[in-house]
Parts: sequence; structure tokens; C-alpha cells
Amino acid sequence: MSLEIERKFLVVNDDFKSEAYQKKTIKQGYLNSDKNRTVRVRIADNKAFLTIKGKTNLSGTTRFEWEKEIDKKEAEELLLLCEPSIIDKTRFLVKSDHHTYEIDEFYGDNNGLIVAEIELNSENESFKKPNWLGKEVTGNVKYYNSSISKNPFKNW
Amino acid sequence: MSLEIERKFLVVNDDFKSEAYQKKTIKQGYLNSDKNRTVRVRIADNKAFLTIKGKTNLSGTTRFEWEKEIDKKEAEELLLLCEPSIIDKTRFLVKSDHHTYEIDEFYGDNNGLIVAEIELNSENESFKKPNWLGKEVTGNVKYYNSSISKNPFKNW
Repeated sequence: MSLEIERKFLVVNDDFKSEAYQKKTIKQGYLNSDKNRTVRVRIADNKAFLTIKGKTNLSGTTRFEWEKEIDKKEAEELLLLCEPSIIDKTRFLVKSDHHTYEIDEFYGDNNGLIVAEIELNSENESFKKPNWLGKEVTGNVKYYNSSISKNPFKNW
Repeated sequence: MSLEIERKFLVVNDDFKSEAYQKKTIKQGYLNSDKNRTVRVRIADNKAFLTIKGKTNLSGTTRFEWEKEIDKKEAEELLLLCEPSIIDKTRFLVKSDHHTYEIDEFYGDNNGLIVAEIELNSENESFKKPNWLGKEVTGNVKYYNSSISKNPFKNW
């Protein structure tokens, strides 16, 4: 149970790949994707999680989050219950000073979309911006994974 | 992970109360209550559960179900994220031959509503009908707890 403070950016080139210290294959779907509450089923490599998030605050940075690890086989069955469509992506982790960027490269209907997220301790905390970091899209609902699942990048 | 086969009936008098071998106070809400998938948070006495159910089949009796016990304090926080409104009820368990009836007496906005459910091994299995058992409402969406949560008995 925690509050997330996150800022989100587009990624303008591939340089982050050589800086990544970890890489995961992620498949995820939504059992609910409305703006007041999301229920997400995620398989990340060999682990699976059920995650419930509340409404995002006005500035788009703070959000209630609850997460439990679940059985991978059960997660595969739960993915079949999810709203269309299922998201496929690779997540790269890149260290930058004392922060970590999570960079998601999307595939399938979202091919061409790459987004970076950084978690902060307060809404005003400063952080380093690597050369591959582009325009900020924090709070832009279109870039929520729950939105991308309903309205994929190829339709934008 | 299981398939539920259930039949549901209205209850016409209080006689079931003296036959009950167990009684639980239940508080539950929905993180999703659409017809293709429901995500339920339930606190039953001192235990709490997160339950995900799939779409009901055409005859209204068979349904995919996944359930995990969760922390009661966390469940109380998750109830705050649920769609309005939260359901308050007492569940009575009554043995009838080799079956068990679950009888829910609702309170608050659903005062006056009492519903009994029986779980069967197959859709055609026979079972005993006690004197307090009334009209069958199996498959009637209005009596789903997920529907009652959105459209309580007092509005019917």
C-alpha cells in the first residue's frame, strides 16, 4: 500500500538500451481501466502480479497503489478475462544518479511507442534528464497503459 | 480457480434462521461490476478476500471464479476505492440433505431483501427445497450483488 509519485516522458532515441542494467518482458491487461480505479493483471518474465490503483490526483503524479504477487498460471487465466487488448512491452531499467528510469518499449498495436517513467519522493524533487529523454507527458491520460490498452498507439 | 454452478431463490420467511449452523457479517464492494468481469472486495467477520469472476453463461449458472485471501486492513482501504455503494448483509449457512444453502439477509438500502443460493455439482442435480424457499431468480441480473450495489432494493 503506497502512494506513487511519478513523472512520465517520451523517449526520442535508443541510447537508453546500452545503459540498461535490467530488461523484462511484460504482458498486461486490465480487469478495470476507468479513471477512478484500475485493476491490472501483469506477467513480468516468470512472476505475476495483481495491482489495484486509485484515482490520480489533479497534478497527475500521486496515486494510491496496492499490489500482490499471484500465481503465473492463474494470471494467464485472468488475462483471458481482461478488457481488450493485452499490452506487450519490454521494460528496461536505467540508473540515473540516485534515481531509476523505467523505460517501456511497446510492441504489436503500440509499435513505435517508447515511454520513460521516474519515481520521485516528492512532487518537486529534481532529477537528471538523459539525452534520450523527450517531451514530458505526466498526467496525459492517453499515455496511461490502461488507456493504451483501449486505444492503442496505431490509432492515434 | 473453479467453475461455480449455483441456483438462486428468494426467501419467503425467517424459518431458516433457527436452522442456521453459521452466521457471518459481510461487507463488500466492487472494483468492477460489469457483466463480463467483476472484481469484488469482501470482509467477512475477521477475514478479507479479493474475488474475480468472469461472465455468466447463457443459463446463468456457470461462472469462472478466482479468489485470494487478503489483509483485512488493506481490504478496508480497497473498499474506499470501490464503486458506490457498499453492501452490508448477514450470511446464514443452512444444511439441507447433502447440500448447503447460503442465505443473505441484506441491510441499509437493501433492507427487506433475503436471497438463498445453493451450489450444485452439475446444472441438473436435484436438491431439497425447504418451506422458506420462494421463487427462483437464477440468472436474473437484478439479483446479482454487483447489480444490487449499483441499484439497491429500495429503488426497485
